[in-house]
Amino acid sequence: MTGGAVTAMGVAATMTEPSAEPSAAGTKTLRREDLHVSVSDPAAASMNFLNEVAARFPDAVSLAAGRPYDGFYTAGDVDRFLAVFREHLIGRGQSEAQADRTLLQYGRTNGVIGDLIARMLAADEGVDVPPEAVMVTAGCQEAMVIALRGLCAGPDDVVLAVEPCYVGFTGAARILGIDVVPVPEAADGLDPETVLRVAQQVRASGRHPRGLYVVPNFANPSGLSMPVPVRRSLLAAAREADLLILEDDPYGLFGLDDEPRPTLKALDTDQSVIYLGSFAKSVFPGARVGFLVADQAVEDAAGRRSLLAEELSTVKSMLTVNTSPIAQAVVGGMLIESGYSLRAANHDKTEHYRGNLRTLLTALSREFGDDPRIRWNAPEGGFFAVLDVPFAADEAQLEVSARDYGVLWTPMSYFYGAAGGERAIRLSCSALEPSQIEEGVRRLGMLVRDRAS
Amino acid sequence: MTGGAVTAMGVAATMTEPSAEPSAAGTKTLRREDLHVSVSDPAAASMNFLNEVAARFPDAVSLAAGRPYDGFYTAGDVDRFLAVFREHLIGRGQSEAQADRTLLQYGRTNGVIGDLIARMLAADEGVDVPPEAVMVTAGCQEAMVIALRGLCAGPDDVVLAVEPCYVGFTGAARILGIDVVPVPEAADGLDPETVLRVAQQVRASGRHPRGLYVVPNFANPSGLSMPVPVRRSLLAAAREADLLILEDDPYGLFGLDDEPRPTLKALDTDQSVIYLGSFAKSVFPGARVGFLVADQAVEDAAGRRSLLAEELSTVKSMLTVNTSPIAQAVVGGMLIESGYSLRAANHDKTEHYRGNLRTLLTALSREFGDDPRIRWNAPEGGFFAVLDVPFAADEAQLEVSARDYGVLWTPMSYFYGAAGGERAIRLSCSALEPSQIEEGVRRLGMLVRDRAS
Repeated sequence: MTGGAVTAMGVAATMTEPSAEPSAAGTKTLRREDLHVSVSDPAAASMNFLNEVAARFPDAVSLAAGRPYDGFYTAGDVDRFLAVFREHLIGRGQSEAQADRTLLQYGRTNGVIGDLIARMLAADEGVDVPPEAVMVTAGCQEAMVIALRGLCAGPDDVVLAVEPCYVGFTGAARILGIDVVPVPEAADGLDPETVLRVAQQVRASGRHPRGLYVVPNFANPSGLSMPVPVRRSLLAAAREADLLILEDDPYGLFGLDDEPRPTLKALDTDQSVIYLGSFAKSVFPGARVGFLVADQAVEDAAGRRSLLAEELSTVKSMLTVNTSPIAQAVVGGMLIESGYSLRAANHDKTEHYRGNLRTLLTALSREFGDDPRIRWNAPEGGFFAVLDVPFAADEAQLEVSARDYGVLWTPMSYFYGAAGGERAIRLSCSALEPSQIEEGVRRLGMLVRDRAS
Repeated sequence: MTGGAVTAMGVAATMTEPSAEPSAAGTKTLRREDLHVSVSDPAAASMNFLNEVAARFPDAVSLAAGRPYDGFYTAGDVDRFLAVFREHLIGRGQSEAQADRTLLQYGRTNGVIGDLIARMLAADEGVDVPPEAVMVTAGCQEAMVIALRGLCAGPDDVVLAVEPCYVGFTGAARILGIDVVPVPEAADGLDPETVLRVAQQVRASGRHPRGLYVVPNFANPSGLSMPVPVRRSLLAAAREADLLILEDDPYGLFGLDDEPRPTLKALDTDQSVIYLGSFAKSVFPGARVGFLVADQAVEDAAGRRSLLAEELSTVKSMLTVNTSPIAQAVVGGMLIESGYSLRAANHDKTEHYRGNLRTLLTALSREFGDDPRIRWNAPEGGFFAVLDVPFAADEAQLEVSARDYGVLWTPMSYFYGAAGGERAIRLSCSALEPSQIEEGVRRLGMLVRDRAS
């Protein structure tokens, strides 16, 4: 091996010469059907359709877009949060050079702001977990992928999810080839007895339900929240069914009132809950920072114990190595500046989203209150409400709505695996000004009345 | 999904019941054997062992750490690059508010600096691809996961990888349950005929080889590079075997000389190559920005055509939604400031790494040049070299080396799936000062002579 340099091989003679004109060379073509099923995730097709319709009818009011309101973003925040976090590192004894390394070098797989997140969870949510139980992720989406990957080991391991379900969760499971078994939600919310029944059916079929995905506060898409007694029953059901709960709570700060809505994790006395956290709405989406809390104990064959979050770090390292410490620093700076209270820091955003949801619900009452055939739900917070409509709310109808009535919405059928939601639409109010919401609902009223008559 | 660990049955019956007192409540305990096999990725165990030994013997010189040199990091760069990118957006017609939204709001799944990366690839590598063929990822690690996920659809789809192999690639495949079939590399490098032979064997066994992972420049761990004629032969072999090449090139800028070493993608006339890009060494790891170039055509059953990078965006959206635009902006600002030439921007880093590798190779010659029993290779660039040693280079020996000789290295066996590399070690020179390299090799000499005698 000494001397290193490798000589050319005899095989060189067998190579095909590139043709004179590279542009005329055979273009490698793959068949879409040979690619993995996740490439054809139906949510992507739905999103593409929505975007395409929105682009063709730019004057349509979009009651479809569920993104945060744009008005809160100033890039100056980024510089300031970065500086605050860097000062924090130096205040904790790091030299300038060490702080630079923390921000710019490879770092701890599970992240460098787990302690700040644990403080925030204690202050805002009454959740008491050690920093080592927190893993910082590339957005909440990666947290879902990591939790699913860790929990589901074999082909018989499946996960339950309340249906209608956020498409990001079913998409994450699809990437990993994990089956999602729906737990149907009633019009007034989830019944824990249904969870028990579905878990039992799954076990009877020889499969293992490893977790249950649920959004307890103002869910996307249903807007529904779980009353506190139901949360307690759900935790009891999870214990009974030996299910871990995967709790996703991106909208919890945005209730219409200040009534406390304890997270399942706050009520969790025996580590039945893996909490999936997002900063996309409470800080901003561009940080792409989320987290998971997994304080469950893991025991190996030799009796050694560790925390699930620590065990999952291997999965994290093989997905994205670690979450950009620059992005973590932005969120960390925000947490420090707010005294570790996202609730306090989000006062203005909460007011905005409350106002928008009130505007939506008032407009729906004004528009449809006299029509007994039209029903909608009344979420207690969040970005979404659901309107039952007296017609098939499919993509053809959506296109008519955009073209002839100037209003966009999301078919609820997008959030069901098989059948479901065919005559219902999701209305989003997060990204709009109140006047746009009112105009959107007015246009929706025309569509609905034309179709209902 | 294949490759999952076997799941034990009847777990519910064996669960500990929670006790009456919440604080004393039965701690939810999962069995490690019930978690996915990727949780127990051997690379993580190896890394943990190395870190643990390094922590116990802090005075040991680490010829194990392959991370970039710390001396190039200043957090001020982050602010400046962010500002440069923001100015760039405004220069291209975005308002201040639009630029803020680009940085902070949800954005394009495949990223917002694909055009800048395409310009860089043209300037530095002579690679001519449309911006739409570029997907920005959360580090190169995610690019591997996305490419693997898209290409491998069923349980019979496997991927080939040159062995010894970077553990991040085998780890990515493990997460997805994709089998990696090794293509053994000879001491003087990869023989494309071996690729053909292995691909044939795989097909004969009823499986489909969908790609070949290869690092053509100064590979981790072998340090080897492919001569240009071999690159051309490999491309011909890939065409013959109907294999896509997954080309990973994190070290290409750091050759000992300025000789051009065209990437496989630069020589690729028929889209046989998916290029996996990293900025971890050329900008900094903390950005966690990488990319893939996939300009292959994908055709669906109806004859509609798109680029593979566009098709893979669905996978990306379900893994991490999009790459933090703040992190993208940092890299984008760096590209703009350097006139789209990473080669130019990395002049100082290239000098550093060249100097370090020369120091390592000179020290090896000085230490072992008179001993015909000791051989090592002579990489033409990069961070690594391989030393064959006259003893079993296992973890027990590594611990002895750290404790009694004050030097750390990486067992080459870490980079083999089954057998291989038992009497060889990887030496890294990237993170050290030249004097540390010399001292490390001196200590290594004592270990090797003691064991060889």
